[in-house]
Formats: sequence, C-alpha cells, structure tokens
Amino acid sequence: MPQIDTINRRIVLAARPRGLPTTQDFRLEQAPVPEPADGQVLLRTLYLSLDPYMRNLMEEGGTSYAPAVPLGEPMVGGTVSRVVASRHPGFHPGELVLGNTGWQDHALSDGSDLTPLAETAQPSLALGGLGMPGFTAYVGLLDIGQPRPGDTVVVAAATGAVGAVVGQIARLKGARVVGIAGGAEKCRYAVDELGFDACLDHRAPALGERLAAACPDGIDVYFENVGGAVFDAVLPLLNIGARVPVCGVIAHYNDQQPPPGPDRRPQLMTTVLQKRIRLQGFVILDHYGERFEAFRRDMQAWLDAGQLKLREDRVDGLENAAEAFIGLLEGRNFGKLVVRVADA
Amino acid sequence: MPQIDTINRRIVLAARPRGLPTTQDFRLEQAPVPEPADGQVLLRTLYLSLDPYMRNLMEEGGTSYAPAVPLGEPMVGGTVSRVVASRHPGFHPGELVLGNTGWQDHALSDGSDLTPLAETAQPSLALGGLGMPGFTAYVGLLDIGQPRPGDTVVVAAATGAVGAVVGQIARLKGARVVGIAGGAEKCRYAVDELGFDACLDHRAPALGERLAAACPDGIDVYFENVGGAVFDAVLPLLNIGARVPVCGVIAHYNDQQPPPGPDRRPQLMTTVLQKRIRLQGFVILDHYGERFEAFRRDMQAWLDAGQLKLREDRVDGLENAAEAFIGLLEGRNFGKLVVRVADA
Repeated sequence: MPQIDTINRRIVLAARPRGLPTTQDFRLEQAPVPEPADGQVLLRTLYLSLDPYMRNLMEEGGTSYAPAVPLGEPMVGGTVSRVVASRHPGFHPGELVLGNTGWQDHALSDGSDLTPLAETAQPSLALGGLGMPGFTAYVGLLDIGQPRPGDTVVVAAATGAVGAVVGQIARLKGARVVGIAGGAEKCRYAVDELGFDACLDHRAPALGERLAAACPDGIDVYFENVGGAVFDAVLPLLNIGARVPVCGVIAHYNDQQPPPGPDRRPQLMTTVLQKRIRLQGFVILDHYGERFEAFRRDMQAWLDAGQLKLREDRVDGLENAAEAFIGLLEGRNFGKLVVRVADA
Repeated sequence: MPQIDTINRRIVLAARPRGLPTTQDFRLEQAPVPEPADGQVLLRTLYLSLDPYMRNLMEEGGTSYAPAVPLGEPMVGGTVSRVVASRHPGFHPGELVLGNTGWQDHALSDGSDLTPLAETAQPSLALGGLGMPGFTAYVGLLDIGQPRPGDTVVVAAATGAVGAVVGQIARLKGARVVGIAGGAEKCRYAVDELGFDACLDHRAPALGERLAAACPDGIDVYFENVGGAVFDAVLPLLNIGARVPVCGVIAHYNDQQPPPGPDRRPQLMTTVLQKRIRLQGFVILDHYGERFEAFRRDMQAWLDAGQLKLREDRVDGLENAAEAFIGLLEGRNFGKLVVRVADA
C-alpha cells in the first residue's frame, strides 16, 4: 500500500506547441492532494501511458473524437492506479484500476471511467498489449486489414506499441510480415524476437527500392501508423484489392502547414481507383463495445502460449513524462512507452 | 436488316494525347469488311458507348484493369451490334448482341464476349442504365456507399451516365441527394426530372459555401466521379463514418503531371483517420459475377415502375465519335453518351 501523500504533482499544458513540442509547452505544478467527496475514489497513479494521439489533443480544437486539453489543465492519458481512499461502494482501498486520470500523481474519480484490474506481475500491460494499443492493432488489422494466409502485410513503427502487435498477429494469421522501423537495432528485434519476415530501417537510404525487394509479391495490407516517406515507399507497391487501415499519421502530427508541392492527392485517388484499394480510418474508441472481449480472449491466449511478445519502454518518474513524450514523437522509444509514476 | 457493306470504317488511335485529346489523336481508316472464319460471327455496330475510362486506355501502359490501346489499332468500346453473318452455332444473322467491338462499323467475334439482347424499343440502354454505367452506379453506391435512410448522399457528374443513376437509387433508398453538375440546365434537370433534393452548378462561384449550405447535416456518402475542385468542396463536409466509393477522377485524366502544391495528401490521410472515412476504389469488371443479376432485376423493376429515368445523349455517325468523346471529357454531354453508328 502506498503512503498517502499530501502533495499532488501534475503536468499541465502550458502552451500550444508549434511543430514538435518542447518541454516549455508543459509545466509541473503542485497542489494539495484532493479529498474524495461522497461517491468518489481517490487514486494514486502507478503507470501513465504515453501515446501519439496526445499530440493531437494539444492542438486548439482537439480532434473529432476528443476535445483539446485546455491550457493550464493536466495532460490527459490512460493510467493504472491504486485506490487510496474510497467513498464509492464499488471500490475499496488497495484495489488496482485502469482509468484515464492523466499526467498526475493523484486523481479523483466517480468510478464511471474505471475498470478493475487483477493483480498481475505487470499491470502496465493494461496500457499496452492488453489495452488500447493492442486493441487498436487487433481491430485495425483483422477487421479492416483482413489479412489472408500468404498475404504480404507491411507495418510501420514496427516495434512500437501498435506495430509490434499488428505484425505478430499478422504472422499468426499466416501472412508474410515486413516491418519498417527506425534504426538497425529495432529492425533486428522485429525479425529475431518478434518473428517478422523482414524489417527495414527507414533512416537508411533508398527505402522504396529496399521495400520493393522485400515485397516481391507486392503489398496486400499496409497498416498505416506513420505517413510521410514510408507511405511514399508503400503506395507504388500496393496490390489490386489492397487494404490500408489508417490508424495514425505520426509524421504529420507536428505539421504547421501542408508540405510543399506537388499536390499528390490526385495521384493517391487515382491509385485508390485503379488498384481498388480500401483506405479506411478508424479510432479505437468506436469499437470497445463490439470487439473488446474477443480481443482480450485472443490476446491473453497468444500471450499464455508464448506466441506473442510485448516489449515495454519504461521511464521512471512523472517529472520525466514530457521529455519521454517528445521522444515518442521522434521515434526514440523502443516498445510501448509508459511512465512509472509510483511503486505498485 | 442492314445491308451488307463492303467497306469497314474504323477509328484508330493515331497518337497518345498530351492532356485533353484532340481530333488529331484519332484517325478514321477504311478497310474491307472482314469475312468470318469458322466459329466466328460478323457484326454490324448499331450503337457505340463512349465512356470516360477510355481516356485512360489511350495512355502508354493503360490501366491495372485493361491494357492500353496500341497505336494504329481501333479504339475500344462497348457496342450493341447486329449479327450480319454467322459461322458460329450459337448466333444467327439478325440477332442483337452486346459486345466490346470498339469504334468501328464491323467486327468479327468468336462469340465469347457477346451477350444476346432482346429486341427492345431502345437497345442502347444496354450500354447505359441497364449496362456498365448503371451497374457501376448500383455496386458503388449500394455495396461501398451503403446509404441509409436519412443519409445525405452527394454525387458529382449528376446527370451523367453513372451519376444520374447513383442519385436516383440513393433517393429510392431514402437518402437525401445533392447533385453537382456543370451548368444551370443540368442542375434543373437533376432536381425537376430526376428528383434530386438539390443540385449545384460547379461552374458558379463559391461551390464550397453552397455545398455546405445544401448539406446542413454534412455528407454521409460521396460518390466520387470527378476529383479536383468538387472533392475540395466535399472533403471538409464529410461526416464521421462517411463512405466514399471512388469510381472515377475525370478531372485528373488529362493531367500531364501532378498539380502544383501544397501537397494535400497528408491532409486527406488525416481527414480519413479523424473522420473514420472509408475511401474505396472499385472497377466494375470485378463485380459482374456476383452482382449483375441482382442489378438487372432491380433496375428493370425501377424502370418498369417509372421510378427511375434514363437520359441518353445520342450522337449520329461513327465519324463524330472523336469529337463527342472529347466533349465528354469536357462535360459537354447531357446524359449517357452513345454514338448511333447504323440504323437498327
């Protein structure tokens, strides 16, 4: 059981970033730990998830699926927490819960956004492979990508929280998997540890040529996490009838304005037409009702059977969250990025 | 019964066009009418279909679904013909057939690409609403667009061979239909005759603002025939979960190089992601096996019940085909463009 602190540290949005965020866009504040009112629980954050979508919530206007973080308010984020005090009949002190309490040591909740978690050796998996990123990989790949045995599946950010799961599930479904990742070490890991058939370093020259060589039968499914130069390399290799689940375009999250020309939108539309491509965006929040139980069951079975590996990139200390998040946007993480905020 | 001519006129591809084709890119040639060999039929073309896809087959390399027309060879195209002579047991002189015999007065066939047609008052409908363009509208709208009652469906080239059918089927399925067409006369026709809820002239200023006003609940289905400035107007209005069947991008068929920047491909991908849009290209050749009978049955029923109207833009004389085709690419046709090559 954690001790009950009196000071709550929280990281608030200090400024709306222009381009890549800097540490100046965040501010560490201290306030008294709040007292739960009737019907509330007080939570102590153990793990905070850092994910690319948070960049979009720093923008004025936010996204179509979540509002912007107001200036001066704590950054949002998924969390694994322990109940410290409870005036809610459904929760008891000491319990472990999954929530969305953001970048802070403590938070109050009325319980409506909390999911009880079993005590496990690695509760932070509920923020990774067993949680939102894993579910994103599962739905995007299986429901939109629909890989068939023998298909070639390409996934970028191949050792990231989503990409690593996409590639491993695709392998389990009988597809040939080619990853794209930043650096030789990540690529080795994708092949040697995750079992990808190949993995290409997008920082080395001539990605287009190397991808063509690695995909002699073209590409049937491209799981889009990235955009930019990786999509440039993928587009000419897409096969007739290819499926492109669009999960993220992290290369563009920091764009302040559209890149210079030429305008390649017409070329994309022409390719979509001629190759009969299905390009489909999805936001995982839409899918929890219908598919989450199937995902949990399948994922747990794959983990239990040793058929799927999850790698965590763990940063210690809430005070290091901003720096770690900036690194995530630059591709410096290696595995699912979580911040250990307090000991379990 | 037509007389048996001795001269076969045919229009061949004389040069690969740069941008919009000119009449110099075509050449009218004369040759003796060929003699059918054993197992062949000799056909007299009655109607020739002119369709936008033909522009793509004039390019070196052709498309993913059909090879380029070789220089010096007749332009390809769907035709309604009468059997003049037959050395094939399945066909008899005088029979009416649907084929793909191209821009010429006569052609030989081994019968494998011919479909017998019943004698009707307007056999050329087999090239329009009851044929490829109608089937294109049916599959693209119903299978990819999936309109629900109350949805807003937008279709460009709204009085064209495909667009007019898309809009009318969408109305029959309970959607609100907004057309986009070139000129006030076409727009009046779409509303007054085809029953569209609204139709906007893309040649008048401020299309974006007018489309927003005509679609107060946003756009759920956009049937893409056009690209270019029309897609610019549509994109910001697409609703979450919108479906975009990509049937054609006629605005870009004459592009010699990508248009100047900025590059709007990233913006499109971001919109696809945030709005969870399904953008899907299709080529109707892929769908004949599975869906053609359902289409024929539904379309005939709608026509018989007076629930759907088909307008033909008929040009007389094979010698006028090139000029008419160029006009099609410029939007000068009004309805399904066919050339009457010979009297029925």
